[in-house]
Amino acid sequence: MELQSLIRFARGEAPAELLLANAQVINVLSGEIIPTSVAIVSSRIVGLGDYEAQEVLDLQGAYLAPGFIDAHVHIESSLVPPAEFARAVVPRGTTTVITDPHEIANVLGLEGIRFMLESAKDGPMSMFVMAPSCVPATPMETSGATLRSHELAPLRSDPWVLGLAEVMNFPGVIHGSSEVLEKLMAFEGTVIDGHCPALTGKDLAAYIAAGIGSDHECTTVEEAEEKLRMGMMIFIREATNARNLETLLPLITPANHHRICFCTDDRQPRDLLDEGHIDFMVRRAIAAGIDPIQAIRMATSNTADYFGLRDRGAIAPGRRADLIAFRDLQDLQPHIVIRGGTPVAHEGRMTIRRLARQPHSLRSTMNVAWEQVDFSIEAGTGEGRVIGVIPDQLVTEHLVEELPIREGQAVADPQRDLLKMAVIERHRRSGAMGLGFVRGIGLREGALASSVAHDHHNLVVIGADDPSMFTASRRAADLGGGMVVAKSDRVLAELPLPIGGLMTDEPVTTVREKLEDVLAAARDLGSDLHDPFMAMSFLALEVIPSLKLTDQGLVDVERFEKVPLWVS
Amino acid sequence: MELQSLIRFARGEAPAELLLANAQVINVLSGEIIPTSVAIVSSRIVGLGDYEAQEVLDLQGAYLAPGFIDAHVHIESSLVPPAEFARAVVPRGTTTVITDPHEIANVLGLEGIRFMLESAKDGPMSMFVMAPSCVPATPMETSGATLRSHELAPLRSDPWVLGLAEVMNFPGVIHGSSEVLEKLMAFEGTVIDGHCPALTGKDLAAYIAAGIGSDHECTTVEEAEEKLRMGMMIFIREATNARNLETLLPLITPANHHRICFCTDDRQPRDLLDEGHIDFMVRRAIAAGIDPIQAIRMATSNTADYFGLRDRGAIAPGRRADLIAFRDLQDLQPHIVIRGGTPVAHEGRMTIRRLARQPHSLRSTMNVAWEQVDFSIEAGTGEGRVIGVIPDQLVTEHLVEELPIREGQAVADPQRDLLKMAVIERHRRSGAMGLGFVRGIGLREGALASSVAHDHHNLVVIGADDPSMFTASRRAADLGGGMVVAKSDRVLAELPLPIGGLMTDEPVTTVREKLEDVLAAARDLGSDLHDPFMAMSFLALEVIPSLKLTDQGLVDVERFEKVPLWVS
Repeated sequence: MELQSLIRFARGEAPAELLLANAQVINVLSGEIIPTSVAIVSSRIVGLGDYEAQEVLDLQGAYLAPGFIDAHVHIESSLVPPAEFARAVVPRGTTTVITDPHEIANVLGLEGIRFMLESAKDGPMSMFVMAPSCVPATPMETSGATLRSHELAPLRSDPWVLGLAEVMNFPGVIHGSSEVLEKLMAFEGTVIDGHCPALTGKDLAAYIAAGIGSDHECTTVEEAEEKLRMGMMIFIREATNARNLETLLPLITPANHHRICFCTDDRQPRDLLDEGHIDFMVRRAIAAGIDPIQAIRMATSNTADYFGLRDRGAIAPGRRADLIAFRDLQDLQPHIVIRGGTPVAHEGRMTIRRLARQPHSLRSTMNVAWEQVDFSIEAGTGEGRVIGVIPDQLVTEHLVEELPIREGQAVADPQRDLLKMAVIERHRRSGAMGLGFVRGIGLREGALASSVAHDHHNLVVIGADDPSMFTASRRAADLGGGMVVAKSDRVLAELPLPIGGLMTDEPVTTVREKLEDVLAAARDLGSDLHDPFMAMSFLALEVIPSLKLTDQGLVDVERFEKVPLWVS
Repeated sequence: MELQSLIRFARGEAPAELLLANAQVINVLSGEIIPTSVAIVSSRIVGLGDYEAQEVLDLQGAYLAPGFIDAHVHIESSLVPPAEFARAVVPRGTTTVITDPHEIANVLGLEGIRFMLESAKDGPMSMFVMAPSCVPATPMETSGATLRSHELAPLRSDPWVLGLAEVMNFPGVIHGSSEVLEKLMAFEGTVIDGHCPALTGKDLAAYIAAGIGSDHECTTVEEAEEKLRMGMMIFIREATNARNLETLLPLITPANHHRICFCTDDRQPRDLLDEGHIDFMVRRAIAAGIDPIQAIRMATSNTADYFGLRDRGAIAPGRRADLIAFRDLQDLQPHIVIRGGTPVAHEGRMTIRRLARQPHSLRSTMNVAWEQVDFSIEAGTGEGRVIGVIPDQLVTEHLVEELPIREGQAVADPQRDLLKMAVIERHRRSGAMGLGFVRGIGLREGALASSVAHDHHNLVVIGADDPSMFTASRRAADLGGGMVVAKSDRVLAELPLPIGGLMTDEPVTTVREKLEDVLAAARDLGSDLHDPFMAMSFLALEVIPSLKLTDQGLVDVERFEKVPLWVS
């Protein structure tokens, strides 16, 4: 809308398009709840109070708040692209997300980031991007792309790019790695997000002094208090597999809540659909006794202010008409969601139709040198290293065990819960493959394969025998990426993820069903983990202790170096 | 300092340059007061806590807060340029100001703005500029420069320019004046400050919807509450002649104080030196019962956040070492001021020497066509308009009186407190001159002349007889600008203001003394106003009701048009 028109409508010189009448407006600026009406024209709020309008929606005394903002999310974890992700979270009241597309960036580089930006353009949600700072995470893996500072810097000029995403390489920062510092300098003056679990004292001071403004990895109140006092915006995270909200609620006080935002980081389809998104965090916070206006600020204005999004985060003239209505302040369930002036969801369901599925133009990302794939492990001398899975944690144990030997080969032994694991390079057809053993997945037979393996997203496979591993991994590749459960030469269940091997453009409800089929099949084969695919996806992430496997082999994360399978 | 060094110092790998030990740190982020030490290297805080340092300054338990930030100030009102202004306010704890150089811009345009930026570079204070939006204020005056949107827009790329200064032409905004809207659009996405006294309801909504983010003209709590609720940042102002702090203190609550900043707008040397600057406001707020940390936030972090100054406003690693130490939270008097890591003031006095006075390169701005100056007013028919001064207010009365006639000329009559007033164009030697009468200045004899006349700053003169008026105005011009008191052909007192006719590069203490001499001389001539020069300077400002005089003649501000002297 032109400025001239905006001013005319604000003055009431012509009827607004839509009036939300009889609302209890949550004024996050003044900290009040004010009974009034809100007039909307095009994507904007033009005024509050009595306005003529072409259409009046009587809210019958319902509360009206700004749309929620997720301060940090990897949309890829929902297994669907932004437009479809939006259909899961918009009915929950989320109208803006700040995303770090580092999963797809590790697969497809800038092309992947552009795909995310393009996909979001079609969706009923504003998506801002933080430029991924850690592609690849370390040199001990083969990723599909490498993004250096000179490749990232041009993203600064994109109006949808706000800054540099979570700088996970905190050792790189505090030891002054030139590659990391170049990225920080390339984004100087913008928002730079952090990721520094358990960093404290002078190392934390160094990390913050480098210009890094936020952290979403706090797991204790003490950790969060230190970081907040030292200048960080604290993003409280409630992900699928990292739930920090309950623990961190005591952090929040009236005096410091302006320095706290809510984020979800990684949430699977089931959690998005069953629990919700930022709304879930707001409800839990209010239920725990946090003042509702303060809880809503952490989900709206605080995040907008931190990222410099002056056009949203509050209900005021000129701001975007991103609004949610709900009836109960103590059990906040948005029954109307308006995004950019358009009602988009009602009673938890989208009211605008899904856009026709457009064939995406991304290249295939499954490029495996199958002629070189051989899961056999020649017997060595001494004992062997085994990755020990700890349920519901990303850290692993670094075990050393007697490995079963048969005909000169080290093999899996499901009786002892010793399974074989492989990470097959799948970006460049290099033939690189890491092999090892894992305990804690629990398969009695068969194999699981997946193209989701943080952060390089090579093809990861775990199995009780080599033929099952071959069937599962080969099928995952043939699908263009995905999650597969196989036994011998039979595929038992599968979830195709053809977009970068990470996402599919099927509806999120369908994805959720297929994911549950896959999990059920894994359970039938003996895995009693809540989600063995998620566990597996983090066994390849060589920045989280203790023992991990990449396509380049086993990594001792504490020593931050590759180690051989055999300990002699 | 290079990023690499900053990180190394933050980690304590080398001793810091300065450690402020044994401090009670006001943590405006967490809302706490924390006993600790602050380590500084170069211009930056590198860390809090135990650090080795080359020099340790034991604060002996004194409080330590971020340096104060003035959200909106016209430095020209102090009659000295930024470097000298800094010497008045830095000992008071101000380390950053956001200035609108619209006085000098009305005289010298972009050259004047550049002069201010250059002057600030030499000073012990950070000065950010807002691009003046109203040069000239109206077409009913002759200013020294005109700044249109295409002339202002390039300022956006200056790192010291943050946005567009107070948009005083609020009627222009709400009526959609294309000239005003072009300026708003040229600064879209930056901070745009407002100025909209008493604007309310839908007109206010229109003004805010246009993208204007702040207001410093609130004179009642109700006015401020409405503006704050509608999205404006409220700058509470405590100027020399517009004191809003006491009135607005009840506005401030723990729930809304994040949306409030402190500013001084216009403060004369005497007030700066005797009362102080932002420190004065913080003291008064605390004395009135505002929580000290909240009061300090309004003077530091709130302002930094609003203007997007991520490098200051709090005591945290990586932020600028702009710091003040004080002993009493209930009577906040900074005894140590550190700016960019360097101690610059101690016990209320600057501890760094004044830079050698550099001859400024500004052209002379007093360009008067003296051959055309003739103060005589031919008698007309009927009564005449008279500007009625109301003590301590900027608004005037629009009087109509029988004017004294002598030998066919309308003349002053000090007995009836009817003085003659002239506004002489002094920028372009055009010969334009407005003539009129004024009541309320109180001179029994002689004349006052000044080159300070808001906002066009033509030469304004008020007198009891024409020879005195000529002497005073001619002398003011010969000085290159200034304030002069004269009687007949004698100059009684003078304050030269050779920089644009607005400022002098003499020390602010000297300026204050000379100003008091000038005021004493005016008092001797019969004026019992607190400051007749300040009153006179606003009699030429044709945007404040009711009757004003510019070089183009009398202006009826309510009708917003020029009117003749004689009412027939």
